Amino acid sequence: MVDFSVILQSLDYLGTFAFGLSGAMVAVRKEMDVFGVAVLATVTAIGGGTVRDMILGNVPNFWMTDPTYLCLALIAGLVTFIAYHAVERGLSALILFDAIGLGVFTVIGAWLAMEADACAIAVVALAALTGVGGGVMRDVLAREVPIVLRDEVYASACIVGAIVFWWGMTLHVMLDVMAPVAAALVVTIRLLSRKYHWHLPRPEHTVPKVQR
Amino acid sequence: MVDFSVILQSLDYLGTFAFGLSGAMVAVRKEMDVFGVAVLATVTAIGGGTVRDMILGNVPNFWMTDPTYLCLALIAGLVTFIAYHAVERGLSALILFDAIGLGVFTVIGAWLAMEADACAIAVVALAALTGVGGGVMRDVLAREVPIVLRDEVYASACIVGAIVFWWGMTLHVMLDVMAPVAAALVVTIRLLSRKYHWHLPRPEHTVPKVQR
Amino acid sequence: MVDFSVILQSLDYLGTFAFGLSGAMVAVRKEMDVFGVAVLATVTAIGGGTVRDMILGNVPNFWMTDPTYLCLALIAGLVTFIAYHAVERGLSALILFDAIGLGVFTVIGAWLAMEADACAIAVVALAALTGVGGGVMRDVLAREVPIVLRDEVYASACIVGAIVFWWGMTLHVMLDVMAPVAAALVVTIRLLSRKYHWHLPRPEHTVPKVQR
Repeated sequence: MVDFSVILQSLDYLGTFAFGLSGAMVAVRKEMDVFGVAVLATVTAIGGGTVRDMILGNVPNFWMTDPTYLCLALIAGLVTFIAYHAVERGLSALILFDAIGLGVFTVIGAWLAMEADACAIAVVALAALTGVGGGVMRDVLAREVPIVLRDEVYASACIVGAIVFWWGMTLHVMLDVMAPVAAALVVTIRLLSRKYHWHLPRPEHTVPKVQR
Repeated sequence: MVDFSVILQSLDYLGTFAFGLSGAMVAVRKEMDVFGVAVLATVTAIGGGTVRDMILGNVPNFWMTDPTYLCLALIAGLVTFIAYHAVERGLSALILFDAIGLGVFTVIGAWLAMEADACAIAVVALAALTGVGGGVMRDVLAREVPIVLRDEVYASACIVGAIVFWWGMTLHVMLDVMAPVAAALVVTIRLLSRKYHWHLPRPEHTVPKVQR
Repeated sequence: MVDFSVILQSLDYLGTFAFGLSGAMVAVRKEMDVFGVAVLATVTAIGGGTVRDMILGNVPNFWMTDPTYLCLALIAGLVTFIAYHAVERGLSALILFDAIGLGVFTVIGAWLAMEADACAIAVVALAALTGVGGGVMRDVLAREVPIVLRDEVYASACIVGAIVFWWGMTLHVMLDVMAPVAAALVVTIRLLSRKYHWHLPRPEHTVPKVQR
């Protein structure tokens, strides 16, 4: 039992670091200063979970008492700031870590939502928020249309994982089984979608691109 | 008494659906994929109320235990994704429903703020946040300067309604009277302002348009 | 003791007003209507503290029971809307008030975080959020890349002040000493950095400016 939660915790830290790197990379590309890089790393790494905890009323939230999260995010920012090209060369490892983070964040979000007695669809929404919220904030701050809203299977992986997790837990499958299964499913879908260039359907192309 | 709250609840659902359609329409125009359309529909429909509940410390919030809100938002997203042109042809109905949503959201926000013993100006602020918050988030995610900050009487309708509601409640008028009166006032101002092209004053035009 | 908290409160109000002016000035430059100016003034003035209170679970938050904050923000908006050029001519006073606001907001944020038993790094993060959060929201709503993420020592002043405050409090220095010292430090760094054009390091310039 202890082993399992230690592994989950370690993967959670790994994901936080990977999310931090992804935020910092966007900041460096946008030529932000060292503070901007630190902020974007932090927001990307902990933003989704922070909003989830605000909605669920979890006080203190996950990073207020455990300094590891903020430290990892800041280290990720600093590393990227100093050695952007080295981080970029390790992109394939980053994509793997990022997928692991997505999987772990999804499971943690779904689990906390179920603990709070959220209805099924709210469980999926809060899991997705935990997984992709930080990335959306990163893109808003960097003045991009959030990448997850445009053309990636990123969030879908998260949603499928959350549904499977919710379903298993509702059928009383043990948490120790469902958590790794659902997380692994997210990682698998994410990596496969990337490898084979899956895309979600877009709206019909006849829609006029008028500003509202 | 039961009838009244059933009507309010029904109009709240109607408004949620209309807000969801408006979010989804922006997403389709921005050529987002099906997930992006779902997110923008959801954020527009429930975003304002979610932030209000976070500020008020309402846990669980309104959509965590009643799945109807998220379902309506997602259905609105899906309908718009599949049949954008049909939704657009129904624009006049959409505008009516949207105005109804604005009225109901305003009253619910003002009421919850008064229940939490907020001061008068905070009641108005929280009512306005409930009414226009979702639309502002929609526009931020879609990389528009939020439309309510630019040139619509949209938010003013909301503010007038909230003031009237607060005033009536302070004078001990019954909730069953004030809620429909204030909501109807919001709807009326909104529809009249649209019909007669009312505008709020803009700053003097001699201001230099310098980037800060 | 009473005197001290009265002074802190007064400076807090002064800072709120200055932050409100800075938000309203951006809104006027962006040609927003009177409602948009009011919203940007309000969000800039109280946005950082509002998110801090949501994270800390402080309900009711600071502006729900004390109407002064929202009133000051709205007056700042109105003044700027009516007399933009006068406000701009008073820019050097505004910069001083803004620096005072930054100092006071930082100390209040750090103090509330310590009261909530946050770890050291979370204290600094919440202090920085209180100080710069409103300005970041202002820039997101006005569709700018947030200025604090680009090229100012703004946030660094805040961080240094928060670290000194946390350090002093941990060494059991009295609050009445540490609060003014830390706030004054923030103000000093801010004003000196502006006068002497200090800049934080940017990433190496060879980074490709590729859209992600």
